[in-house]
Amino acid sequence: MTKVIMNGCNGHMGQVISDLCEKDPEIEIVAGVDINTEQHYGYPVFANIADCDVEAEAIIDFSHVSCIDALMNYSVERQIPVVVCTTGLSAEQDALLKSSSEKVAVLKSANMSLGVNTLMELLQTAAKVLAPAGFDMEIVEKHHNQKLDAPSGTAIALADSMNEALDEAYSYKYDRSQERKKRDKYEIGIQAVRGGNIVGEHEVIFAGTDEVITFKHTAYSKAIFGKGAIEAAKYLAGKPAGFYGMADVIKSAS
Amino acid sequence: MTKVIMNGCNGHMGQVISDLCEKDPEIEIVAGVDINTEQHYGYPVFANIADCDVEAEAIIDFSHVSCIDALMNYSVERQIPVVVCTTGLSAEQDALLKSSSEKVAVLKSANMSLGVNTLMELLQTAAKVLAPAGFDMEIVEKHHNQKLDAPSGTAIALADSMNEALDEAYSYKYDRSQERKKRDKYEIGIQAVRGGNIVGEHEVIFAGTDEVITFKHTAYSKAIFGKGAIEAAKYLAGKPAGFYGMADVIKSAS
Amino acid sequence: MTKVIMNGCNGHMGQVISDLCEKDPEIEIVAGVDINTEQHYGYPVFANIADCDVEAEAIIDFSHVSCIDALMNYSVERQIPVVVCTTGLSAEQDALLKSSSEKVAVLKSANMSLGVNTLMELLQTAAKVLAPAGFDMEIVEKHHNQKLDAPSGTAIALADSMNEALDEAYSYKYDRSQERKKRDKYEIGIQAVRGGNIVGEHEVIFAGTDEVITFKHTAYSKAIFGKGAIEAAKYLAGKPAGFYGMADVIKSAS
Amino acid sequence: MTKVIMNGCNGHMGQVISDLCEKDPEIEIVAGVDINTEQHYGYPVFANIADCDVEAEAIIDFSHVSCIDALMNYSVERQIPVVVCTTGLSAEQDALLKSSSEKVAVLKSANMSLGVNTLMELLQTAAKVLAPAGFDMEIVEKHHNQKLDAPSGTAIALADSMNEALDEAYSYKYDRSQERKKRDKYEIGIQAVRGGNIVGEHEVIFAGTDEVITFKHTAYSKAIFGKGAIEAAKYLAGKPAGFYGMADVIKSAS
Repeated sequence: MTKVIMNGCNGHMGQVISDLCEKDPEIEIVAGVDINTEQHYGYPVFANIADCDVEAEAIIDFSHVSCIDALMNYSVERQIPVVVCTTGLSAEQDALLKSSSEKVAVLKSANMSLGVNTLMELLQTAAKVLAPAGFDMEIVEKHHNQKLDAPSGTAIALADSMNEALDEAYSYKYDRSQERKKRDKYEIGIQAVRGGNIVGEHEVIFAGTDEVITFKHTAYSKAIFGKGAIEAAKYLAGKPAGFYGMADVIKSAS
Repeated sequence: MTKVIMNGCNGHMGQVISDLCEKDPEIEIVAGVDINTEQHYGYPVFANIADCDVEAEAIIDFSHVSCIDALMNYSVERQIPVVVCTTGLSAEQDALLKSSSEKVAVLKSANMSLGVNTLMELLQTAAKVLAPAGFDMEIVEKHHNQKLDAPSGTAIALADSMNEALDEAYSYKYDRSQERKKRDKYEIGIQAVRGGNIVGEHEVIFAGTDEVITFKHTAYSKAIFGKGAIEAAKYLAGKPAGFYGMADVIKSAS
Repeated sequence: MTKVIMNGCNGHMGQVISDLCEKDPEIEIVAGVDINTEQHYGYPVFANIADCDVEAEAIIDFSHVSCIDALMNYSVERQIPVVVCTTGLSAEQDALLKSSSEKVAVLKSANMSLGVNTLMELLQTAAKVLAPAGFDMEIVEKHHNQKLDAPSGTAIALADSMNEALDEAYSYKYDRSQERKKRDKYEIGIQAVRGGNIVGEHEVIFAGTDEVITFKHTAYSKAIFGKGAIEAAKYLAGKPAGFYGMADVIKSAS
Repeated sequence: MTKVIMNGCNGHMGQVISDLCEKDPEIEIVAGVDINTEQHYGYPVFANIADCDVEAEAIIDFSHVSCIDALMNYSVERQIPVVVCTTGLSAEQDALLKSSSEKVAVLKSANMSLGVNTLMELLQTAAKVLAPAGFDMEIVEKHHNQKLDAPSGTAIALADSMNEALDEAYSYKYDRSQERKKRDKYEIGIQAVRGGNIVGEHEVIFAGTDEVITFKHTAYSKAIFGKGAIEAAKYLAGKPAGFYGMADVIKSAS
């Protein structure tokens, strides 16, 4: 059983993960950290991570950008591997994660779901075979009407993943309405649809001559990100210093 | 049996329609018009429509913008109803069609397919019920990588059709990547995907709270536009002067 | 503000509806009925509906088949319109609802979601236009791996709805693997997919020559059934005796 | 440039391949074989393959089950690798292909399209990761209303391909309407939709908790099978005796 600290335990995702851990015999939250120190589960809650003097094998973080510096300090000092799920980090914070990963195991991923990360791996293989055979690649993502950014970070990560696997560098095309021209071969169109309370859907299209192959991931609840974080924590416990991604978690499972 | 003149008979769509008419006992092409006067079917081919001295009950036009003026002159003078399928008409030509329709039956539609036009009718009803209930409307269209314009004329026509049915005027949103803001309630997103040799796919999404309704039309061949033109010609034969659309053809069928 | 009694208030859907009503200023639950009389919301909870001596304008029922007889008695005697959402009623109970509806307003629907019912209306129009034009109709539904019955009641209701609109009677085809023959023109294929915890997806396909039109409804949460029940209760309050459906609720909204 | 013999050159697929070869500088049809000896392209046409005394590096076969025995004799005797695309072979003929492959290169595949075969490879990886993580696998295939068999050979091949990659043996489920029970974990549902003139669509669904991943292949024309056969012939020319599949062709391309 992996003992973990839940950083940001009283936020929405912290609560989702606490729920999931209660049903999972392989993991136990031994302490939570949150400005709001209410205790909803069996574990104690600390206002500051620095005060969290428990034995733990991993930290799951779904907190806030303002908590990242203290988190990384603690992780390095106490030598506890950390799964960072907070998004919107600054370039400095990204650099801090990288430098910290020389001293402790750090895992960070654009999307924590097992499904999206499996898809990302498969898209690399697909791109390597289909792009040279003349297939065009396009992405359509759909999210709720409250989302501020477009396209989604996951859509960009999917495109980056395919791009990495290809010999040529493909540019990303977000809008085709402002010009009158044929599609460029070395581009990946990325379109964003917004509406209702759609949790998240990503569709990657490979369009060839007389055939189209589509890969689609549909999220029905944010709990999938919590589940991915839990699997990541189990994987990271006991790992040596280094920078890890969800691809490592998936590879270890298969 | 409806006797028709095929204007632009040696173009791609003219040939498709000639093929279809050979198998349809309710229609007969009695003459063709084309700069290229080769004769591939049983009917005579004239270089100029003015010289086409046959008896006919309707004209199907899939020619070129440069042929529209002569076509409308002929249609009015000879009092033969005309189905205009040529696209990219100038504002002057659109006006000419309207003024001609005071003297002869004229039919023009953004998309000639029976399926797309049925969908357009249904979307008006859907928009009237679902938009006031808080559903957001979005369109994604997919076409081949040689298409110059984006979004497609049909996607715009679908949006216009819904807009017409609504009390508020909705604006169209083609790109969300250039700003960081929530979706506006009174907008319809229209996204264009390009790849391979996709004939044409239009998806209209109504996204509400916890439910999404999607309407999708997929074209597998341009023959559907020819079939729609034939049905339109059958319908238009014998009709009084006026401006008609495919909606009229569909209503007469049901 | 519509005052309602919630029959089966401590079941899953009863709680969902109680939540929704707290946020909706147009409706108020004035009493609940449930074997489990715990009180989670402001309203009193009665073990037997017969004891529920409050003033109310409608009843929402999401209880159990064993509670239907008492419910209908109460509704008729107290002259309070009732929205029956319990499923799996016996033929006798269906008959009881019909006979009761001669004395009080009764509403019953195969699926309570606004979206599904809007779709059902549109499918009737679509079937009337497209079936005579040679389009074949097929349904694919997807639900979670715990569902016992297949195909879903909603899939059957969608097929029935189209069938009603057509001149010929179409039969339903659930399995094509046991014979080697071409599709019959007057059949509607209905296929059931089961997996994960999919809430419910229904896809109706009209396949013609070179074009396919697809109508799809995706449910992301059972809350949509609660929302539909609330709208039905608001609509039913003050209505005369009669048998109503969700189609009436939708028509009144548009 | 690969020199090939086209067996069944005057059938539909033989003509499609002849068209494609005219535009492809890497391949040349040097002779055709067909009962109908009309000559539509530059190459000579023989009524019997035994009389076909040309130099060739590969044979593409899209003929008829009755032509397979003569084909295999010729291929072995003349030591010319053969791509067998004729479907519906008997068990004896399948055995003949296997035994012939000890003496000459033989390639046979359930589906000749590059896209479907790429998908098949990816599905093996997906199944290995997702099935142990609790995802349920289901397949929906759609074909035209003239197709006699259901489900399609390609749908079965996709399921077989996943099954091969899994530790447990999964059974296939074609109909769920005849019983009232929960889905079994070790089954793959395969559903067949029939309508219009749909060329072929295969959708493989991995449904997990709160997330679904879908892989879809859509064929817009049978030309994709011809293109796959051509690539297979190019690949097979010069290969040693052995039994090959499209997976080998794809691997050599990437």
